Amino acid sequence: MTHEDCLGCRLANKSEDIYMVYEDDYVTCFLDHDPFNEGHTLILPKQHFLDVDELDDETANAIMKASILISKALKRLYQPDGITINQNGGVFNELTHYHMHVVPRYEGQWFGDFYREEDVGKVDVRELERVSGRMVEAIEEIRKGCLL
Amino acid sequence: MTHEDCLGCRLANKSEDIYMVYEDDYVTCFLDHDPFNEGHTLILPKQHFLDVDELDDETANAIMKASILISKALKRLYQPDGITINQNGGVFNELTHYHMHVVPRYEGQWFGDFYREEDVGKVDVRELERVSGRMVEAIEEIRKGCLL
Repeated sequence: MTHEDCLGCRLANKSEDIYMVYEDDYVTCFLDHDPFNEGHTLILPKQHFLDVDELDDETANAIMKASILISKALKRLYQPDGITINQNGGVFNELTHYHMHVVPRYEGQWFGDFYREEDVGKVDVRELERVSGRMVEAIEEIRKGCLL
Repeated sequence: MTHEDCLGCRLANKSEDIYMVYEDDYVTCFLDHDPFNEGHTLILPKQHFLDVDELDDETANAIMKASILISKALKRLYQPDGITINQNGGVFNELTHYHMHVVPRYEGQWFGDFYREEDVGKVDVRELERVSGRMVEAIEEIRKGCLL
């Protein structure tokens, strides 16, 4: 079930503009519009769920699988010092729709800053378009490799 | 494969003291010895993996399933305002063994503090013992409910 009044549902089902990097039957993955670093990606279920403990098995497994694929693409494109995966539930879920962040990180950056509430500046749409193109390409290459 | 010189492998396979709350064939879940809040739990694979993109399908699915079960138990015991799940990879993985945090949170606490490096004070072992007992009980009740 999806809800027309839920922004997460609209994003995951592409009735809002997104810079998609990957999708399957259960999830849509697209660039965060206010990235912590280039390549910062969100994984959203296409069905409406708020918290992790509401997910059905298929969706839960699809989220984990997508997080693995996106991590591989981020490593291939950016060689980050590490990747942090996080998901904030309950009142800390500002989208009121389950979403998992996959964030490339570099030494010298403090990740506590991820949790600062700041106004999002003007989003550079051309930049997001460029990055999503690179991510799509990397993910396709990785998936081709898996099938060989 | 497990490594005797990996602390994560030893913790996940119970050759170190842990306050376990749940295990299955693939993962061991136990209390963080320096909890952000009471009930803060770690999920570790029994096999040695460093990063999310190294996980095999069975282990990845078991991690997600365990995170769902632990979230349910935390909600039942503590009614947190939300639960944050996070996993830090690469050089930000201080255990050099994959581990996912499941952390109950309350309004008014800033989660950036999770990423402050502080010395762990003396661990209150009796407190951890008490909390793990409650978690085990809650998880058993939830699992029984699932089987009915």
